[in-house]
Amino acid sequence: MIKQRLFTPGPTEVPPEVLIEMARPMFHHRTARFRKMFGEVTSGLKKLLMTDNDVLTLSGSGTAGMEAAIACACPRDKKVLVSNGGKFGERWVKIAKVYGLDVDEVQLEWGTALQPETVAEKLASGDYGAVITVHSETSTATACDLEAIGKVVSGTDAILIADCITSAGALPLRTDEWGIDIVGSGSQKAMMLPPGLAFVSVSEKAWKNIDAITPPAFYLDLKAYRKSLAKNDTPYTSSVSLIRGLKVALEMINGIGIETVWSRTALLASATRAAAEAMGLKVFSSQPSDSVTCLMLPDGVTDEQFRPVLRDKYGCSVAGGQDSLKGKAIRISHMGYVEPLETIGLIAAIEYTLAEAGADIKIGAGVTAAANVLKDWR
Amino acid sequence: MIKQRLFTPGPTEVPPEVLIEMARPMFHHRTARFRKMFGEVTSGLKKLLMTDNDVLTLSGSGTAGMEAAIACACPRDKKVLVSNGGKFGERWVKIAKVYGLDVDEVQLEWGTALQPETVAEKLASGDYGAVITVHSETSTATACDLEAIGKVVSGTDAILIADCITSAGALPLRTDEWGIDIVGSGSQKAMMLPPGLAFVSVSEKAWKNIDAITPPAFYLDLKAYRKSLAKNDTPYTSSVSLIRGLKVALEMINGIGIETVWSRTALLASATRAAAEAMGLKVFSSQPSDSVTCLMLPDGVTDEQFRPVLRDKYGCSVAGGQDSLKGKAIRISHMGYVEPLETIGLIAAIEYTLAEAGADIKIGAGVTAAANVLKDWR
Repeated sequence: MIKQRLFTPGPTEVPPEVLIEMARPMFHHRTARFRKMFGEVTSGLKKLLMTDNDVLTLSGSGTAGMEAAIACACPRDKKVLVSNGGKFGERWVKIAKVYGLDVDEVQLEWGTALQPETVAEKLASGDYGAVITVHSETSTATACDLEAIGKVVSGTDAILIADCITSAGALPLRTDEWGIDIVGSGSQKAMMLPPGLAFVSVSEKAWKNIDAITPPAFYLDLKAYRKSLAKNDTPYTSSVSLIRGLKVALEMINGIGIETVWSRTALLASATRAAAEAMGLKVFSSQPSDSVTCLMLPDGVTDEQFRPVLRDKYGCSVAGGQDSLKGKAIRISHMGYVEPLETIGLIAAIEYTLAEAGADIKIGAGVTAAANVLKDWR
Repeated sequence: MIKQRLFTPGPTEVPPEVLIEMARPMFHHRTARFRKMFGEVTSGLKKLLMTDNDVLTLSGSGTAGMEAAIACACPRDKKVLVSNGGKFGERWVKIAKVYGLDVDEVQLEWGTALQPETVAEKLASGDYGAVITVHSETSTATACDLEAIGKVVSGTDAILIADCITSAGALPLRTDEWGIDIVGSGSQKAMMLPPGLAFVSVSEKAWKNIDAITPPAFYLDLKAYRKSLAKNDTPYTSSVSLIRGLKVALEMINGIGIETVWSRTALLASATRAAAEAMGLKVFSSQPSDSVTCLMLPDGVTDEQFRPVLRDKYGCSVAGGQDSLKGKAIRISHMGYVEPLETIGLIAAIEYTLAEAGADIKIGAGVTAAANVLKDWR
């Protein structure tokens, strides 16, 4: 009788309206009914991503979408600049190398973000065909200034491929205005869906690259998706139930307006950081993302004392730290279907759990701090 | 994208496990499969009500169950003592009169409960065949000392009919130990189910009354239910999906133990009262029930300023006042599938809503008080 709540940075909570829609009987994807739905979903995604570019929907995780972009759109005769400030940056480096690209890896200290100046300096050489960056690095809960990086890259011949898996629908993201050639995202984050769909928006500039390259893959060949998209369709069997759910989720998000969702997410993050300060917990990251917050566990409290208790006793699942943060940090999502009252409840549960683990915690200090920030919620 | 949470004293929240079970395909009730399930459900109800008496399950609201008890079990040659301290006591008076019973109505001031001494004095005359009382009067959020009243009545020839609609599964209730002849309850309160089922436990002493009376009703004739119960069946078409859900709900409740549920409910009520004190809100009732709390709105804050905002802006539904409390009070349920973290969130939402309505509220005072009480939750 303990309610289970997901505060993990993906998968995230799925609204009951979406769950019910996905539970409806199956129908076939090669039908006018499906194409109508798929067309509506594509329009909704464009609105959410603020783009007139093609938005392709693949059945696969966010990684599949990013791999398709990296494999299909990076020119083979130039270098590719890849920032690596965490587990996901590291993954894009690996993928670029799998496809034999000439990778220039920018190693970042964990908790710091790629700086626009670095990109400008590198690209001044004219040697680069693509820049790959992570907008919100989930492993370190750190966000870069994607707008500024977009401005730098769009003034060059290179394209910008942005991993927006934990930013699209959570952080401000204006694809066309910022000049982001390829946005990669996934369903199980701010989109409020189960995992299983990847979204890839592609600019004209990026399509020129793609058209010039012999596709190094079949399932992940973006040209096949573009061809089908013209008929509101997908090249391979579509995840019909997930697309149904996506339609409802997009109606919910676009119904209240993506900018409202952004400010809600930011307020939840701000409340969590205020609560952390009141509880004496350190926020990891010098440039914290608003989609996920990484907090250091206090000295003397182990992950084993903390996360299993928070989950089993209080029903709140948060993620742990990765690599050098393993066992030392927790990560809390603010994406999608979480809201103030739950976040206040989570802070209370964190207070209880830390107190039980022997930390010096004054019950109520964190919740008061969070409640005071969140009173401005709308 | 605002989560809707029911803090109303019925219907209450239904756990997802129960909702999913009720969504499964229909099957027929005149089958061995149904009888097996119904037998298990009846055992679970006995465990929850702490009784070896028959427990009958009717398709109908709690009122149907209480009407069946009043109509079938009150001796016609004696008076019936009915306490009326709120909307539900008032209803049982009306029903007793519909069936031509000689009603002695004990009018109680709202917010007070029937006292065992009153019952003892009345019954000393030997004129009474039955006593009807409300264990937890939802309209005033007031609980009587049912144990003491049971002790008084069980020493006489009269039977005790207790409306336990908002107490069974929420407040301590030991049917056999306390000598409660008839317990009436319903599905949509602490049982964590949608409305639609009534439960009536009947002692041997009450069955003797029932057997001596020509049934004044057909659908509500308890003898028909007893006859079917012997075959693990119901006399009329059973609400199959609700029974399925009931099986899961009872497994959840009996799995953690009814006494644990009682203490949880009491802790939620205690936290809500502590928060009310910290917010400067008056608790209505001189003998507050732990299943529901009635709070007076502060001067200058109207129901129109409060409940619609709490519901539409913060997703928290609470009940309003009735009759003389209409527009002046709110009622918050602690029954069933609510828990500490949500109750803390509700208190924050109450603080926000009162502050927006112009009340003098210090954000965080109520949540801190609630969080401090609830830290002892298990």
